[in-house]
Amino acid sequence: MTLAQKTAQLVGLWAGARRDDNAAPMQDQLIADGMHVDEFAAHGLGQLTRHWGTTPIAVEAGTAELRRRQAALAERTGIRALVHEECLTGVLAWGATTYPTPLAWGAAFDPELTERLGRRIGDDLRALGVHQGLGPVLDVVRDARWGRVEECIAEDPFTVGVVGSAYVRGLESAGVVATLKHFAGYSGSRAGRNHAPVSVGPRELADVHLPPFERAIRAGARSVMNAYNDVDGVPAAGSADLLTGTLRDRWGFDGTVVADYFAVRFLETMHGVAADGEDAAVLALSAGIDVELPTGSDYLAPLVAAVESGRIDESLIDRALRRVLRQKLDLGLLGAAEPEGDPTVDLDSAANRALAREMADASIVLLQNDGVLPLDAGRTPRLAVVGPNADRFGAVFGCYSFVKHVLPRHPEVDPLIAAPTVAEALRGRWPGEVDVVEGCAVMDDDVSGIDAAVAAATAADVVVAVMGDDSGMFGRGTSGEGCDREDLSLPGVQEQLLHALVETGRPVVLVLLTGRPYALGAAADRCAAVVQAFFPGQEGGPAIVDALLGVTSPSGRLPVQMPRPGTPQPGSYLAPKLGSLTGVSSADPTPRHPFGHGLGYTTFVREGLSVAETRVAVDGVVEAEVTVRNAGDREGADVLQVYASDPAAQVVRPLRQLVAFRKVPLASGEAQTWRVSIPAAAFAFTGVAGHRIVEPGRIVLRVAADAADEGQAIEIDLIGDVQRVDVIADEPVWERRG
Amino acid sequence: MTLAQKTAQLVGLWAGARRDDNAAPMQDQLIADGMHVDEFAAHGLGQLTRHWGTTPIAVEAGTAELRRRQAALAERTGIRALVHEECLTGVLAWGATTYPTPLAWGAAFDPELTERLGRRIGDDLRALGVHQGLGPVLDVVRDARWGRVEECIAEDPFTVGVVGSAYVRGLESAGVVATLKHFAGYSGSRAGRNHAPVSVGPRELADVHLPPFERAIRAGARSVMNAYNDVDGVPAAGSADLLTGTLRDRWGFDGTVVADYFAVRFLETMHGVAADGEDAAVLALSAGIDVELPTGSDYLAPLVAAVESGRIDESLIDRALRRVLRQKLDLGLLGAAEPEGDPTVDLDSAANRALAREMADASIVLLQNDGVLPLDAGRTPRLAVVGPNADRFGAVFGCYSFVKHVLPRHPEVDPLIAAPTVAEALRGRWPGEVDVVEGCAVMDDDVSGIDAAVAAATAADVVVAVMGDDSGMFGRGTSGEGCDREDLSLPGVQEQLLHALVETGRPVVLVLLTGRPYALGAAADRCAAVVQAFFPGQEGGPAIVDALLGVTSPSGRLPVQMPRPGTPQPGSYLAPKLGSLTGVSSADPTPRHPFGHGLGYTTFVREGLSVAETRVAVDGVVEAEVTVRNAGDREGADVLQVYASDPAAQVVRPLRQLVAFRKVPLASGEAQTWRVSIPAAAFAFTGVAGHRIVEPGRIVLRVAADAADEGQAIEIDLIGDVQRVDVIADEPVWERRG
Repeated sequence: MTLAQKTAQLVGLWAGARRDDNAAPMQDQLIADGMHVDEFAAHGLGQLTRHWGTTPIAVEAGTAELRRRQAALAERTGIRALVHEECLTGVLAWGATTYPTPLAWGAAFDPELTERLGRRIGDDLRALGVHQGLGPVLDVVRDARWGRVEECIAEDPFTVGVVGSAYVRGLESAGVVATLKHFAGYSGSRAGRNHAPVSVGPRELADVHLPPFERAIRAGARSVMNAYNDVDGVPAAGSADLLTGTLRDRWGFDGTVVADYFAVRFLETMHGVAADGEDAAVLALSAGIDVELPTGSDYLAPLVAAVESGRIDESLIDRALRRVLRQKLDLGLLGAAEPEGDPTVDLDSAANRALAREMADASIVLLQNDGVLPLDAGRTPRLAVVGPNADRFGAVFGCYSFVKHVLPRHPEVDPLIAAPTVAEALRGRWPGEVDVVEGCAVMDDDVSGIDAAVAAATAADVVVAVMGDDSGMFGRGTSGEGCDREDLSLPGVQEQLLHALVETGRPVVLVLLTGRPYALGAAADRCAAVVQAFFPGQEGGPAIVDALLGVTSPSGRLPVQMPRPGTPQPGSYLAPKLGSLTGVSSADPTPRHPFGHGLGYTTFVREGLSVAETRVAVDGVVEAEVTVRNAGDREGADVLQVYASDPAAQVVRPLRQLVAFRKVPLASGEAQTWRVSIPAAAFAFTGVAGHRIVEPGRIVLRVAADAADEGQAIEIDLIGDVQRVDVIADEPVWERRG
Repeated sequence: MTLAQKTAQLVGLWAGARRDDNAAPMQDQLIADGMHVDEFAAHGLGQLTRHWGTTPIAVEAGTAELRRRQAALAERTGIRALVHEECLTGVLAWGATTYPTPLAWGAAFDPELTERLGRRIGDDLRALGVHQGLGPVLDVVRDARWGRVEECIAEDPFTVGVVGSAYVRGLESAGVVATLKHFAGYSGSRAGRNHAPVSVGPRELADVHLPPFERAIRAGARSVMNAYNDVDGVPAAGSADLLTGTLRDRWGFDGTVVADYFAVRFLETMHGVAADGEDAAVLALSAGIDVELPTGSDYLAPLVAAVESGRIDESLIDRALRRVLRQKLDLGLLGAAEPEGDPTVDLDSAANRALAREMADASIVLLQNDGVLPLDAGRTPRLAVVGPNADRFGAVFGCYSFVKHVLPRHPEVDPLIAAPTVAEALRGRWPGEVDVVEGCAVMDDDVSGIDAAVAAATAADVVVAVMGDDSGMFGRGTSGEGCDREDLSLPGVQEQLLHALVETGRPVVLVLLTGRPYALGAAADRCAAVVQAFFPGQEGGPAIVDALLGVTSPSGRLPVQMPRPGTPQPGSYLAPKLGSLTGVSSADPTPRHPFGHGLGYTTFVREGLSVAETRVAVDGVVEAEVTVRNAGDREGADVLQVYASDPAAQVVRPLRQLVAFRKVPLASGEAQTWRVSIPAAAFAFTGVAGHRIVEPGRIVLRVAADAADEGQAIEIDLIGDVQRVDVIADEPVWERRG
């Protein structure tokens, strides 16, 4: 291959993208409109960027165009392009089913369900001729102000790793390359500001940010995308330590590393660690960015120039090329092949919708309930359904949905998917009156609609107030990429509306459709019930209504703690004692609801916690048993949560950390006994010397309702010498014992 | 010496302290009331903890008691105790002059004045028989929410280092041991919560937090106190890397390391890095804590047990002992000596008060002024002086003043110092009417006084609104140790009062007496003028009045940027491009006023910036010249501020960083030309490999009014190979040229 042919394999082309799309940071400065594939790809092409996720394109026409492009590439170079697409809440394609956002996967605490979700999305991607999906996001939530919290799974590294790995297994089982992002540390962006510097040391990086990636690579992910941020001054896109040292040398990763859009260029223009474009390209390639996305302008000419001037050896290009071509070989992109894709695929099939509904059902979190829920049409026939998210199409979608990511630029285009609002779904199910009033918008400060909402509330038996976020990109929303909040009260005048509603004296059921945990205040305390749904996708409206009506019993648990007004950020349940105390600081870190909290319409009793051995080798396995009983009069699902505490360690440790969980559906009165086998390596941390170790000593295990619950506790002594842990601990194994 | 005699030298005794003093964290749990020196010190005693700063004790009686104790120790062991005392805003002793808080020293930008302040304080300490002062605080402000911001000098490491070193020189020139605190990283406490974990990597630690300590050790500081926090999981009190590796092996420090109060115990009880008290003592001693403070309970028995059981070698105790005894030898505490202290010393002498006034004058920052200032009694004879800090004794004091630190437990005791309030000082100087109304308290939510304030304002020609903080300890105040804020609006209902005042339409001059920068909002924007004074000490009231009346021209500059409402925290002017942009995040980091901002009653023109050579060796010196001219019609002082930018470096660098400053008083119309010699090492940073280096390449120097001002710029090319910088750069040298 010529040098031009080689570098052509290391870049993507974002055909059809426009400067004003506002779909990637700084796109207005960095995209050339009207790129043509044939001209651009004269020497071949590594990737096609977002064939489906850029403008509305019908499946049949899009498949035909993609086949033409691929055939032309095959004919010219013998190598087709790898086609990548976003897949954060489903395939980013016109009319494709839009599933709940990843934060809802976290709330479901159900890896098996997430794996099925990954598989469905993977199958649809393949049917569209897509080979690589840009997901899952494995950033661990650290600051609720950050706009991309909705794209993350949880604030707990173990939960992110296990749920994220399930998604990876699903996607990869469909033959689609999963892309772990954003490697690494992005969620630590200072003050929750997108792209801001990340102040973490190597221990916090290793113990909080990296484990989900290591776990997901073990689960078979074949690609990794860099994070935009710097970590302690070194941008991830230029960090050989991260992209080569950690990823390949330590973890044995042999897939591809792809650039987040424009991240190579940003090394020069944003981070100031490169003097010009060639410098940036050389730094990124040397560090370990194999494929530049989205447009190729930063790797083609600059890398050719760098080789021709002798600045870098061509072997550096060959290193990336080998990784790219090996993956293309695996994907069948080398040589002749049948045309890919299925022009007849139904992207919003009944099976898709059922799965979207199942995840939405599983992810709804009931935060508080004075007994008003489930709603009873006999007792309270008149409902007022109020609030900016009550009857707004789009209120259920995250920022990487087609509706919120692409269609804002095409307001005339039919989204092709049904997404009943809460109000619509209630109207269809409720035998009594349903009066729907918006009250206020999500974002603005217009209070003129509050009087009408109060009037409707006053005339009702129960008020269902549906509030929260409007997701969007780069300032277009209250949640989503680039939509960071400076404080955590509900956006706009929603707090004021809620206050007016509770002042009516009518019982208010607050339903939150959000992308982050908000700091609910005094008005929410006076609500009869609060239901939290993290953008639950197109089936979210009916799923919420079924939960309100008691058709389902909420079984979601908080994957992020819910702050109080003023709870300092950044903050997470993973705090050590000095990060949790109130005596030494007047700033109180206690959340309104702890990590793991969630109610249902029944109650669970966890009892009889025991361990097979109280002394376990540092390289052994803890075998614990516990019985969970549904003590209420209806069915429901508990999430068994196992927390570990390490009272004395080499370094400061969180007071508690989740080490195992299991969602257990139980009929009324049913009890089940479960055994969980937790490798002692699950208690590992990065010691003083910088290595991941398990220390001998006391560990306290708790099975608890949430991170703040004392629950059932048992002590274990780890015995033996300090043990190096080179590979992340196996997932715990759960086994039904009775 | 016996083992018991040796360990006795490694501890302090806090005689007279009580559990309910609330003067140190967790004191209620960790102090035994009623300790007696003679019993406790049977084998000798390393230090006497706060002989003066615990309860009100008159100089004569206190000196006599101290002499008795020292004589008894000398007789019994031949070694007297080293007496240490707080000295943050002056000597922490009853009736001693209370100077402006360190944040005001930063605002003065006048190291020479700070050195004189250190010398005055040192002389008074010596007169009280005190050998060691617990200051200066060299923590670099990172988060305005933190309560101890008032104790810090600035958010700029260079400013902290230079001003802090001046204080060290002053204190040490009086023969008093200066104690650098808190080593290290404390100001990075997560979310501004006191004692919370610190998430910084080694580069941020090295480039932001450590340089002031390195500089102050070069300036002659003989003691260092650990920080309470952990840095990336390792508590400073147990960090051999910090206390021995950095401090002694790299910097050559040969003084003593003393424990912040109870920090040894906290290794077990708070950090969980020690299993019990002996474990904590061994860890601290091994890491490099030579002296345990304040009470001895954590080093005496535990260390003896550890030696006797063979767990540690006695040589580890001898290491600390040698450092302690060498310092005692230097201080003349070994063998016979004349009684120390001067029972007739005047702790609030005229010289002291003049210096307190000089620093207060120099530190007042005029933030905005529409021309209402200086006040003109001819035009606006009627003044309303309003607000919770207008006429409150104590409003001018920081939390380490005797008034705020000790006297709250002795409300019946006369503070013995005069500290005229702004209202009192105005009444004495203003020929017209002065109507004084409180309006509201600093902290509570009582709005009942606002109407009276509005009435007074309405009847006045100008309103002087004096607002801000009430400093205290551990929840007793709005600023000070343990008094962290969850948001940065003015405490209590002060914003509401201010709004009501500006609504009257009368010109409002807002005077802030605070310990931190607050996020002034819409009401402040409508004020005719805003004056910021960081707790200016006992002469602060008259100093503010002289500034309001134009007797002085304000010459302070902001040592910390002033946020807007919602400016995300943590935040500092030391942000790289991606930490400053608004395009990629809807959270806007732009402050209301930048670092370095400050107005006066005249204007300055900086012009003719030139350099002797535009190409300078990486180990050379940049010689720059600039002329500053007073273009107004009255005298004033400018602060020449020199900022450096490094457009392309190995690692991400701040957009601008202060590298030199000089306060220049100028008569009306006067121009002065100054040459400043800045070593290229001033542009050093920690490179990718972890070493401090100067790189060849472009540096842009600016002489500007503040950190956001483009000012005058000039480019320099550093030439040569990458240069290791093992010792922190010399301070810039300023020389008047014309």
